[in-house]
Amino acid sequence: MSKIKVSIIGATGYVGAELVRGFACHPEVEFKYLTSRSFEGQKFSDIYPVLRGVCDMTLTNTDYETVAKESDLVVTALPHGVSSKTVPVLLENGCRVIDHSGDFRYKDLATYERSYKLEHPHPELLKEAVYGIPEFYRDELRNAKLVANPGCYPTCSLIALAPFLKAGLLDTTSIIINAVSGVSGAGRKESLPYSFCEMDENYKPYGVVGHRHTTEIEEQASFLAGTPLKLSFTPHLAPFKRGMLNTIYAKPSASFTDVSDEKINAIYKEFYKDEFFVRALDMKVFPEVKAVNGSNFIEINGVYDKETNLIKLFSAQDNLGKGAALQAIQAFNAMFGFDEKTGLTLVRGV
Amino acid sequence: MSKIKVSIIGATGYVGAELVRGFACHPEVEFKYLTSRSFEGQKFSDIYPVLRGVCDMTLTNTDYETVAKESDLVVTALPHGVSSKTVPVLLENGCRVIDHSGDFRYKDLATYERSYKLEHPHPELLKEAVYGIPEFYRDELRNAKLVANPGCYPTCSLIALAPFLKAGLLDTTSIIINAVSGVSGAGRKESLPYSFCEMDENYKPYGVVGHRHTTEIEEQASFLAGTPLKLSFTPHLAPFKRGMLNTIYAKPSASFTDVSDEKINAIYKEFYKDEFFVRALDMKVFPEVKAVNGSNFIEINGVYDKETNLIKLFSAQDNLGKGAALQAIQAFNAMFGFDEKTGLTLVRGV
Amino acid sequence: MSKIKVSIIGATGYVGAELVRGFACHPEVEFKYLTSRSFEGQKFSDIYPVLRGVCDMTLTNTDYETVAKESDLVVTALPHGVSSKTVPVLLENGCRVIDHSGDFRYKDLATYERSYKLEHPHPELLKEAVYGIPEFYRDELRNAKLVANPGCYPTCSLIALAPFLKAGLLDTTSIIINAVSGVSGAGRKESLPYSFCEMDENYKPYGVVGHRHTTEIEEQASFLAGTPLKLSFTPHLAPFKRGMLNTIYAKPSASFTDVSDEKINAIYKEFYKDEFFVRALDMKVFPEVKAVNGSNFIEINGVYDKETNLIKLFSAQDNLGKGAALQAIQAFNAMFGFDEKTGLTLVRGV
Amino acid sequence: MSKIKVSIIGATGYVGAELVRGFACHPEVEFKYLTSRSFEGQKFSDIYPVLRGVCDMTLTNTDYETVAKESDLVVTALPHGVSSKTVPVLLENGCRVIDHSGDFRYKDLATYERSYKLEHPHPELLKEAVYGIPEFYRDELRNAKLVANPGCYPTCSLIALAPFLKAGLLDTTSIIINAVSGVSGAGRKESLPYSFCEMDENYKPYGVVGHRHTTEIEEQASFLAGTPLKLSFTPHLAPFKRGMLNTIYAKPSASFTDVSDEKINAIYKEFYKDEFFVRALDMKVFPEVKAVNGSNFIEINGVYDKETNLIKLFSAQDNLGKGAALQAIQAFNAMFGFDEKTGLTLVRGV
Repeated sequence: MSKIKVSIIGATGYVGAELVRGFACHPEVEFKYLTSRSFEGQKFSDIYPVLRGVCDMTLTNTDYETVAKESDLVVTALPHGVSSKTVPVLLENGCRVIDHSGDFRYKDLATYERSYKLEHPHPELLKEAVYGIPEFYRDELRNAKLVANPGCYPTCSLIALAPFLKAGLLDTTSIIINAVSGVSGAGRKESLPYSFCEMDENYKPYGVVGHRHTTEIEEQASFLAGTPLKLSFTPHLAPFKRGMLNTIYAKPSASFTDVSDEKINAIYKEFYKDEFFVRALDMKVFPEVKAVNGSNFIEINGVYDKETNLIKLFSAQDNLGKGAALQAIQAFNAMFGFDEKTGLTLVRGV
Repeated sequence: MSKIKVSIIGATGYVGAELVRGFACHPEVEFKYLTSRSFEGQKFSDIYPVLRGVCDMTLTNTDYETVAKESDLVVTALPHGVSSKTVPVLLENGCRVIDHSGDFRYKDLATYERSYKLEHPHPELLKEAVYGIPEFYRDELRNAKLVANPGCYPTCSLIALAPFLKAGLLDTTSIIINAVSGVSGAGRKESLPYSFCEMDENYKPYGVVGHRHTTEIEEQASFLAGTPLKLSFTPHLAPFKRGMLNTIYAKPSASFTDVSDEKINAIYKEFYKDEFFVRALDMKVFPEVKAVNGSNFIEINGVYDKETNLIKLFSAQDNLGKGAALQAIQAFNAMFGFDEKTGLTLVRGV
Repeated sequence: MSKIKVSIIGATGYVGAELVRGFACHPEVEFKYLTSRSFEGQKFSDIYPVLRGVCDMTLTNTDYETVAKESDLVVTALPHGVSSKTVPVLLENGCRVIDHSGDFRYKDLATYERSYKLEHPHPELLKEAVYGIPEFYRDELRNAKLVANPGCYPTCSLIALAPFLKAGLLDTTSIIINAVSGVSGAGRKESLPYSFCEMDENYKPYGVVGHRHTTEIEEQASFLAGTPLKLSFTPHLAPFKRGMLNTIYAKPSASFTDVSDEKINAIYKEFYKDEFFVRALDMKVFPEVKAVNGSNFIEINGVYDKETNLIKLFSAQDNLGKGAALQAIQAFNAMFGFDEKTGLTLVRGV
Repeated sequence: MSKIKVSIIGATGYVGAELVRGFACHPEVEFKYLTSRSFEGQKFSDIYPVLRGVCDMTLTNTDYETVAKESDLVVTALPHGVSSKTVPVLLENGCRVIDHSGDFRYKDLATYERSYKLEHPHPELLKEAVYGIPEFYRDELRNAKLVANPGCYPTCSLIALAPFLKAGLLDTTSIIINAVSGVSGAGRKESLPYSFCEMDENYKPYGVVGHRHTTEIEEQASFLAGTPLKLSFTPHLAPFKRGMLNTIYAKPSASFTDVSDEKINAIYKEFYKDEFFVRALDMKVFPEVKAVNGSNFIEINGVYDKETNLIKLFSAQDNLGKGAALQAIQAFNAMFGFDEKTGLTLVRGV
């Protein structure tokens, strides 16, 4: 059987590089084009020496029509506002698309436009796009033409919240997400605040109110809860390259009468019992960034604090892995009918 | 004028070492004894090469009576349960004491005994002990015989909460503290979870319910609020050596009708306007661990999230600095009538 | 075709864990036993959470005879002095062995005994053992019963030196190796010098004269040069988890009359032109630890300093990868007739 | 007595910031101007929050004449090529100057012009400038109008080499310096190679032949040896912020007949017995970056490897401390007649 032809537009950012690393390990995939405006003509492995010998393809600046026509799947790792103009061109030319920007993640146009302060040139695609968390939208992915790969924080939050929201077990007015990300989340760029000397031995909040991922989490969390909700979200940066850990606080709902550590753990174990990439940890074992490094796994667990009647949920993933590129490959597997694990047994080790 | 004679019992842990570093820079202090059971006979600077040429005193295992009799101040950096037996001996022998354990931090005996799972051999000292945050207990420190140096998390939390609690501006049932500490908080010890290869590139929660500092914060926060309160506290470890940042969530109280970013900022600026070591930051500037590294400073700021009606407060300090040893020196200055800044213009620089 | 049955004795050290990670990705391998004395009865992934879902086998303390009889290959990750007693038992019971200790790396018994200060209980095996660098001993590996997996520093040094030593291009009295390793090289252990707070922001030499790997490098370098040689070797520790970079200084031999940057580069390119895992870098591009992280690749390049008539060679590898476990898997591929790349396209990415 | 008026031109780089931190702790100094072209009008502590409350002066873009006329000492932290034009203006206007660039470090004009590929506009000042290592040029500093603060690598190398070069104990054709620096050595700038994600968990050589500091070390080493010499110098970057460690290899000279570990150690102890900032370590104790962090100390020790007849010398300092700004303050103390330790008991602690 011939391999699936995959192209990546914007292959040289950190998400792009992780896409290349991941797809390069996929037995059913061959690359058609890796495009880059800045590095056209250079070998991919000159930009990412770690992939020398693994992917030495030359970066091109091929026009979108050609890329689309010659590929089965095009993955776009472009800035928001650019994707919304590029993706329709790709779709018109017959390929399927996984997009990494915020441009197709919302069902509600007004929320998108308020959050991104942009007018959407193709609002009709919002309905069609599938939000790319396979654990929630597996069936829709199968026939999706356009997949909106979720934000890193939303994936990490929604996987942790879903079992409780779907069962109506949380007071939906009480949810607080304290999120911590590694520095690769800021992207590959020349920027003083992300320089080694500024971030090493540092830790700090940023985007303390109104971070865009807030509304993305809210919309999907509302779908899960079956009722509109608002929540509090605060991101922080910590001095590691890859990884992300959310600490989520919420009150149990009135109907969650038997809340306990055991119950929370059992709910997670049951809800995700068939999900390979979601590790519902054992009692008293909690997620750590180290444990998901370089992989598509996400770890979850929770506890109940009787003294303050608060549920605390913890979730950890690799922001470039399950939080971005590797989840896109999991979605790709769902889209093209492969076992979702295919090519995704990558882990970091020590 | 002759210098104040200071001895340190348990000088070779990380808090002890920071006490040595700090007092060694104090112009009005001379060391009498630095004691260590494990390293008796060695030079302090053999254990901490960074202090070679700064403090090369020989560590002794001098009996407590002698230490107390020949010192004006004895600083104890001992484990809880040991301090409660040692400190009374020191006091009986005529010196003043600053203790770093949890043994004298509580006013309520039952709370102490429940939190530390220990019977207190000298409960009568709990009343006498002064909780050593100079910003709150400056007057009491002046004549204190026994100072209980606060825990690192409590200091970082209480400085941030105080202006709002004292003014009745928070819903005291709603307080959630998400705390992140550097690895030195775990102490100087041989332990796999704190080894370089386990903590580098890692981030994780620990003590997720019932960490001892919870009740310490609650008791002092209750004093500030003028009413008993419970709060939620969750500590995490991040891969840096020194520093700590708290992200605190709370609802405004009914009486806080004009809550806004500006108002929160103005309250901090006003409340701490005479406090050298408390940096109430300007609007839109938030605390970072880097900015307090190696110092006795603590940074604070906050915002209001209208969407969820939540106040978010941020505070950052060095866990060994304002969170432990350098605050003890600030308290020492208050106790002995020196300008509180004396010897404390240490900062880390780049 | 049935899979090769592999067992690992001492699976829970860092090398053991990397062996598990690597072999778990190998399509032709199934694990028979993972043994551990300390963690018997626990799941491997409880010790290494990063491998949850990838390898959840239970660790056993199975006797060596059984392990040997039921396995095609046993990999031993045991301390020197223990391996020399264990490996003969394994061989007698019919399996092939890859050993990670120093016990079978030397051809000269006296050098071994002097370097390790041990008497060797089975010197007859020294002759039989194959030194496991496939780039040098590919043919011998095919039928080897016993493979001595090389030390990390020796691999990194010998790959860099080989093309020049074999061609007689270096003054063999002038070789100086300045080596820098990540902290995982010290193993998984509770030890203050390797704790986060002691190694973070630190860099230091150790074993400054007489490190055991010196004689191991010397013996193999002598074989390459065709003449006995002594060299200088000095290891250092730097604050990263995985990786190693050698900076090697040597005078050209009298016969190396046309020494130049171009010539050095060309020699590397030619010598390793068929070696997938040896990246002979382009002119003016030099090895970095980051570029080999998590992989079996090794990078090399060199320059000539006319002013001092010195050749400088650089080589970088992952100390647990090409420096230990992944090279063992490469050797395994050679031993069992697989393409040497099989299962080894692991790279770390960003 | 009135304080010394000190101004800093180019105060917002990392060296500038360390100068501010250091001089701010100096009891005999007051700042007159801190100048910055990029940050004119901002407070210094807005750029370096760590110094909030320690130095909140406003940065100005005052003309050099005014700065010079109103200051006793002007410290320039400017790029080479700019300093050579600026410093003469300052000197003409009556102040004394400590310059941090390479522009006044050489006695030999041709070597400077070859190394920096620049024509020197004021070669007459090369003779007058004093090379600012107080341990070597204490007497000259006392009346110096112009001090050339040495490069970080040269200081670290020369302190280690001096006792042996002055005594003729090294084969001066055999010296090899393997140098490792923290990332702050690259300066405060937006640059991808020095971003957190590129340098964290990395280690690499750079400037592998012909780094400018080579000729600076050679010239001063020649003065110490009393004979012209060439040496090999190779710098590397490691993932820590501050610090530097040199590993130096050299053959003993024919006259060094009794070379041994003990002898090397004794030579260091004797040579530097009156130097507070040079820590000649005890036998078997070796320099570490951690031990000098944040300070003006430098640590040295050495060993002899009989097998290869090589002396190995180790020296560690803080690249911004003894390697730059704090050594400038030590030189300032020498210039203005203060005890050299004044204001310099800064150390980093844990």
